[in-house]
Parts: sequence; C-alpha cells; structure tokens
Amino acid sequence: MHRFFCSEWDGSAIEVVLPLAEALHATRVLRLREGDAVGILNGRGFVGTGTIRSTDRRGAEVHCEILEVRQHARVGIPVRLCVAPPKGKNMDAVLRAATELGVARITPVLCRYGVSRPDGAKEGWREQLLAACKQSGNPWLPELDVATDFGSVLSSSEEVPFVGAVPGTGNASLPEQARLLAKGAALWIGPEGGFSPEEQEALQQAGAVALTVGRWILRVETAVPALLGRLDGILSGAQLKNARN
Amino acid sequence: MHRFFCSEWDGSAIEVVLPLAEALHATRVLRLREGDAVGILNGRGFVGTGTIRSTDRRGAEVHCEILEVRQHARVGIPVRLCVAPPKGKNMDAVLRAATELGVARITPVLCRYGVSRPDGAKEGWREQLLAACKQSGNPWLPELDVATDFGSVLSSSEEVPFVGAVPGTGNASLPEQARLLAKGAALWIGPEGGFSPEEQEALQQAGAVALTVGRWILRVETAVPALLGRLDGILSGAQLKNARN
Repeated sequence: MHRFFCSEWDGSAIEVVLPLAEALHATRVLRLREGDAVGILNGRGFVGTGTIRSTDRRGAEVHCEILEVRQHARVGIPVRLCVAPPKGKNMDAVLRAATELGVARITPVLCRYGVSRPDGAKEGWREQLLAACKQSGNPWLPELDVATDFGSVLSSSEEVPFVGAVPGTGNASLPEQARLLAKGAALWIGPEGGFSPEEQEALQQAGAVALTVGRWILRVETAVPALLGRLDGILSGAQLKNARN
Repeated sequence: MHRFFCSEWDGSAIEVVLPLAEALHATRVLRLREGDAVGILNGRGFVGTGTIRSTDRRGAEVHCEILEVRQHARVGIPVRLCVAPPKGKNMDAVLRAATELGVARITPVLCRYGVSRPDGAKEGWREQLLAACKQSGNPWLPELDVATDFGSVLSSSEEVPFVGAVPGTGNASLPEQARLLAKGAALWIGPEGGFSPEEQEALQQAGAVALTVGRWILRVETAVPALLGRLDGILSGAQLKNARN
C-alpha cells in the first residue's frame, strides 16, 4: 500500500484531500485510481488507511476515505541530531537514515570547518524527511531546524551532548551513558574536517560524552546511523534493566 | 596525506612500486610529485608512511620510499556481514559503511526476494572496499566473497546468525547476545522484500538472534551501519565488564 503525507490532517476526519504534490504523485506516477488502497500520515503519530474515493480529470484533486485510524505514541530514538551538513546527496542520506531510525529532532549545525552554508528549503531537506517517513512507516516527522551556527545551537541546547566520530577518545561507562541519555541527549556529528579546537573545547565545557563505533574514520553518512544504532542499544539495555528491577 | 593500496607489499620492503591504477591516480588526478608524502596500505594490517622517490614521465610508474611501518592488530567489529545486495549505488554504500566500521568479512547473499543476481567483479565491489580502507584508514581489507545462494551460505556458516531489520521481533537478553557474539557472529540483512518464509524458518533453525534498531522499516543502507553500531556497543559493553571482573 502506498503512503501519502498530509500534514493538515488532524487524525479525526473521515475524508482527506491530498496536497497537490501528493495527489499528482498518486495519479500520474503511481497511476492509482478510485478504489485503490492508500495510507495517510500526518507526521504527528496518526496513520490512516483507506481508499481513494474520487479524483478529478487532471489527477490534481484526490479525495481519500479513511476507514481506520491508528495513533502511535512517539517511539524511536529520543535523541536530537546536531549534524554539520555534508554536501548534497550525502546530507540526503543522513536525513533519511535519521528519520528511518526515528530521531526526535534534527539541527543542521554550521561549524568552522563545515563545507557549505546550506539553505535547507532550497536543498529540499524537508522532502527527504517526508519521503523517509512514508518509506519507513515512521508516523512521526522529526522536527527540522534551519541551519544554525555552532555557538547558538550549543548555548541554547538543554540536551547532554554525545559527540561522535572522534576516534581515539574514551567512553563514559555504559550505566553513566544510559543515565545521561535518559535526561535528554543530542548526538553531535562534526564536518569532514572535524570540530575545530575551539568547538571541541566548547563541547567539553558543556559536559560532552565521547562516543565511538569501530576504530576508523567514518564518513558522516556512516557515523549517523552507526552511532544512533549504538545509542538505541544503550537505551534498550537500560530499559531492560529497569524492567527487571 | 594521501593513502594508496598495494596488496603485494609485504610490510617489510623499504621501497614500494604502486600498482598501475594507483600510480595514475597519484600522478594524474592528485598531481603528486617527487618528495610528496604518501601512505601505503596492504589490507593486511600494515601501514607505511613515506614519500614519492621517483615517477616516470607518463606517471605510470611511481616508486615510494617507506620511512616508517606500523603493524595494526585486527581491530574493528569482528563480525561477518551476510547481506542481500541492493541495487547499484546502494550496495556501494553498504560496502563502504561495513569497511569503515571494520567488519571481518562480507558475503553477498542471493535471497529468494532479492532484486538482482550481481557479479561482484563487474560491479566494482572490491574497488569500493579499497576506497573505503584508504578513506577511513582501516588497514584491514574485509574478506569479500562472491555472491552465493542463501542455502549454501547458511549451511556452511559457523557463525551465530544475528538477523537484522525484522521489525516487531524480540531481542535476546544483552548478556546472552554478548555471549553469542563472542563465539563468532554473522549479521544477516535481507533484501528489500525481506527474507522468504522458508529463509526465516531456516535462520530460526540455525538459532538466529533477532536484532532491531528503532521501530520502523530500514533501508539496507541504514540497517547495516545502525546494526553494526549496535553490535559494536554490545561487544564494548562486554569488554568493559570483563575488564572490571
């Protein structure tokens, strides 16, 4: 069943009109017609399943009848991703992976050694998140911030920074990591050239926890899913332990 | 410093002649010259650093003087990756991520619902591994098998299968997972359409441990680094514990 994104849907209506881009995709690319099954996401936990009730001749107006609504609690990896955006398609890969894995929020961070000063709207970042939600079935669209200077992000962040892809640094103990994660954490991933000495210093001052996977230098596209996988494991381990106590 | 791959180098010679493709890359693309610094990998743990001693006029014959040799123990994630190859560039992304993270061996598995019957040599898979070793600094080239039928791989595998990206299945307890990982494990990742019922049955018969990250459907390119990150975390946790006992 094909899924469509309709952020205006409040989860209660029994009929949904698809936004223009989704309607055209449904009728012209996927060639769906009246009676075909569809899934509807609103990015805030609601998933509707139903069928196409009618389309106009241009295929621009698609009315869907919702037959069943499921509301999902916010599950996934309750972490904010603060990432120095790599170029073009590599950032797309990062955004898709983070969305599939279910991060809560993504903040593109402009670092001293960053390669670009991107404009998320122009780059189509939100479209990547929507596509990943539809493909993975994640009913929660991550919050996406505009690209912001390193200093502003760090000083306004209330999350404990976990800093990834810094080879050779030590790890905090696992129980300590689990305790900090439970308080709310951000995963910080620097640009290809790394965080500058001043940025590293600022992260340390903010109580950063070093997090590594493997022993070698990771591209950002690898570091993001690998470190989120590691954080998810730490969280699951802590949950198991709590469940037992 | 640029790194070059020279599988014939045994780690002892004080002079290395670069293979043709590496030589041309050094002289024509990177425009390196006599006296420039280079790193040499042989894929079996040796890393040499030195300088270019001479090049011929065509740039096809590059002699390097090795000034220092380091031998690295086999570190990384001691896991065999058994993966149903996705198409084209997506398999490239999988191979690069697995190499950066330092898996020991990669076996492309031909599954019932797999999308392609690829020929690794034609697809340039080994080149992806070499590029990832050079970029990440991993001195150990993962062993790469030819694409092989699911049944043959599973029946000849001595590793405990950890099966990823099967949403909704439970996890073994962490201590149990750590114990099984220490015995030697393979991470099995199915094709986009999933493992067939017969394949799932065969994996269960072989004692498969289900492994999940997040709650949603992951693309293979996301599942591989996320689950390797998770396995690395389990192994590190077990090591920390052993170190304390």
